[in-house]
Amino acid sequence: MTEMPERASPLDGLIVIDLTRVLAGPYLTMMLADMGARVIKVEAPGVGDDARHFGPFVDGESAYFASINRGKESIALNLKATDDREIFTRLVSKADMLVENFRAGTLRKLGFGWPGLQKINPRLIYGAVSGFGHTGPYKDWPAYDMVVQGMGGIISLTGTDAARPVRVGTSLGDLTAGLFGLSGVLAALYDREKTGRGGKVDIGMLDCQVAILENAICRYFAENAVPGPLGLRHPSITPFAGLRALGGEYIIIAAGNNPLFATLCQVIGRADLLKDRRFSSNEARTENFQILYQALEQALAARSVTEWLRLFRQAGVPCGPINNVAQVATDSQVLARNMIVTAKSGAGREFRMAGNPIKFSQYEDPAVRTAAPELDQDRAAILALIDQP
Amino acid sequence: MTEMPERASPLDGLIVIDLTRVLAGPYLTMMLADMGARVIKVEAPGVGDDARHFGPFVDGESAYFASINRGKESIALNLKATDDREIFTRLVSKADMLVENFRAGTLRKLGFGWPGLQKINPRLIYGAVSGFGHTGPYKDWPAYDMVVQGMGGIISLTGTDAARPVRVGTSLGDLTAGLFGLSGVLAALYDREKTGRGGKVDIGMLDCQVAILENAICRYFAENAVPGPLGLRHPSITPFAGLRALGGEYIIIAAGNNPLFATLCQVIGRADLLKDRRFSSNEARTENFQILYQALEQALAARSVTEWLRLFRQAGVPCGPINNVAQVATDSQVLARNMIVTAKSGAGREFRMAGNPIKFSQYEDPAVRTAAPELDQDRAAILALIDQP
Repeated sequence: MTEMPERASPLDGLIVIDLTRVLAGPYLTMMLADMGARVIKVEAPGVGDDARHFGPFVDGESAYFASINRGKESIALNLKATDDREIFTRLVSKADMLVENFRAGTLRKLGFGWPGLQKINPRLIYGAVSGFGHTGPYKDWPAYDMVVQGMGGIISLTGTDAARPVRVGTSLGDLTAGLFGLSGVLAALYDREKTGRGGKVDIGMLDCQVAILENAICRYFAENAVPGPLGLRHPSITPFAGLRALGGEYIIIAAGNNPLFATLCQVIGRADLLKDRRFSSNEARTENFQILYQALEQALAARSVTEWLRLFRQAGVPCGPINNVAQVATDSQVLARNMIVTAKSGAGREFRMAGNPIKFSQYEDPAVRTAAPELDQDRAAILALIDQP
Repeated sequence: MTEMPERASPLDGLIVIDLTRVLAGPYLTMMLADMGARVIKVEAPGVGDDARHFGPFVDGESAYFASINRGKESIALNLKATDDREIFTRLVSKADMLVENFRAGTLRKLGFGWPGLQKINPRLIYGAVSGFGHTGPYKDWPAYDMVVQGMGGIISLTGTDAARPVRVGTSLGDLTAGLFGLSGVLAALYDREKTGRGGKVDIGMLDCQVAILENAICRYFAENAVPGPLGLRHPSITPFAGLRALGGEYIIIAAGNNPLFATLCQVIGRADLLKDRRFSSNEARTENFQILYQALEQALAARSVTEWLRLFRQAGVPCGPINNVAQVATDSQVLARNMIVTAKSGAGREFRMAGNPIKFSQYEDPAVRTAAPELDQDRAAILALIDQP
């Protein structure tokens, strides 16, 4: 173990070459930047990352790009031009990690396949995120978020009606791939500390969708059942659902064991339900969920969601409202946890965005961050880096 | 850097004390075990992890528990009894990590708060996953998955109708917290290699929901718009949606830029749409999505999803079916990527389950794994560990 000067963040000193575009890869490298890595975004001259051209825009600048590229540096390189390839090669020799989310084979066709990268820098960790991964029969197919949401099964489990499917309301296919990839490159980094060797981490977005099927895939293998969408209730825990209170407004109640169910029934003035054999265990309640949810909604209709939340919280029943994004962004807990941060650009433009949910006791979690870079903004500093001995 | 013998996995040699229950924490530590850590599950005598009692069951054993605890060891300890507290303390002094997902303050009340843990082992990494994190006004509130799905905004973005909300069809609140937590403890582990110091990683499930709002929270801050549910289409990319083909069956099409849109129109025999000014750019197409999707569905009605998938894949248009879980579990790419693995218990019982989506070039990705432990199964080996000098 080398003695190091005082560090400001867990990934202090780490150099990451970031060839990522759009969402899955940039999300991964933003998390690396948030944890202190120096993330050098290598972009195509003139156009840059596609996401620079995705709305919404503020003063002509993409707020979307800003929100997933904060704290990174940028250099524009044409990886087909000799001079720029030379710069890129020298950058690889200096870097700890290279992350990309091209379709499988793209980087190899550019002459920077994994064997070549290893030759340049045997300590390099190479993180590749693609639709289907770098192996298998679909490896050459293009994919975007919604394609893997559909192929991976999550859409078949979401909504109220299998005949009218809905997507998950965020780009879950990209985000989970970014998160599994993040853990993968960090595990490879720890491994390198022990072995001195780098390695390649190959993430397929479809694989990541399979990895989050949880209950549904478990039921499929155990019971040969094909689970469908269940609206706003849990498949095997009851009561664990969104139910209507006064005015038809929904409240989430998660009273999944007998003591919590007893407390719930007492708070809503329906202690009689506890004597009903149809509701005597979680299994029985799940069997009879329709009758139970109807009875609960009848009682809940007496008060507003706000009032019930107060009463349930006093009694210790896990519960919550269904917040929209405006409510989330102004929620006192969300604000207290520094989950809304500001990224301030050199030009003084400010973007507000979601913060980093990983809170380290030993390091600061700054409320103001460096903004996403302008295209090629850090060329001089990056060229200076590769000139260092 | 210490020279180490040949390693079998990136986290080889790492010792993790696992106090987690149910899903978020166990998912995190299962990923650590999958990457080679020795994960020692410390459970309450007699009952163990609540998830041992969650269905579906196979021969009386919870397939659910099996699917999120493979490859771990188990010891039953009563953390309120003097002898067992002594064993636990010695375990802490030997461990690299401790992970728990109690409500904030529970471990402290047991006499094992973070300052105390640090005194026992200054190199310990402590990962805590809770509903709202260990700080802020809601820190003492109980939460389960659906509570944070509701409070964190994802439910407000999912489905077809804000008046009839739906949950995401998997326990996303737990799973994302497990994944951010996993990256957090791995980053802290790398940091420890540099500083010699452990640290605490504090993960709030609600924070993690905010961190995945992506497009929606970005639009809120940029345009002050409050996004709602959009069914099966992307909010700002068009065409990027599920559309009906022959027989009303859905196909996902993600043709989000002009060249892909042009190819799509040619394949379906509607090149005329390319001359329509209403569809001349992504912005225009998003503006006029209803008219466009109607036109596309008219053309798509001519063939089955299977036929269209073949034609679109030939032409390079990103597309896919909406698979149910049975289709996912038998998909050739999913199988080729080893995303369905078997965990084999000592008693010979076999469970099939989702595999690990993090693929390392330098290490094996075994198709057969060690099953989840019986309660207290590894007591002798764990007691031997703490007796080592």
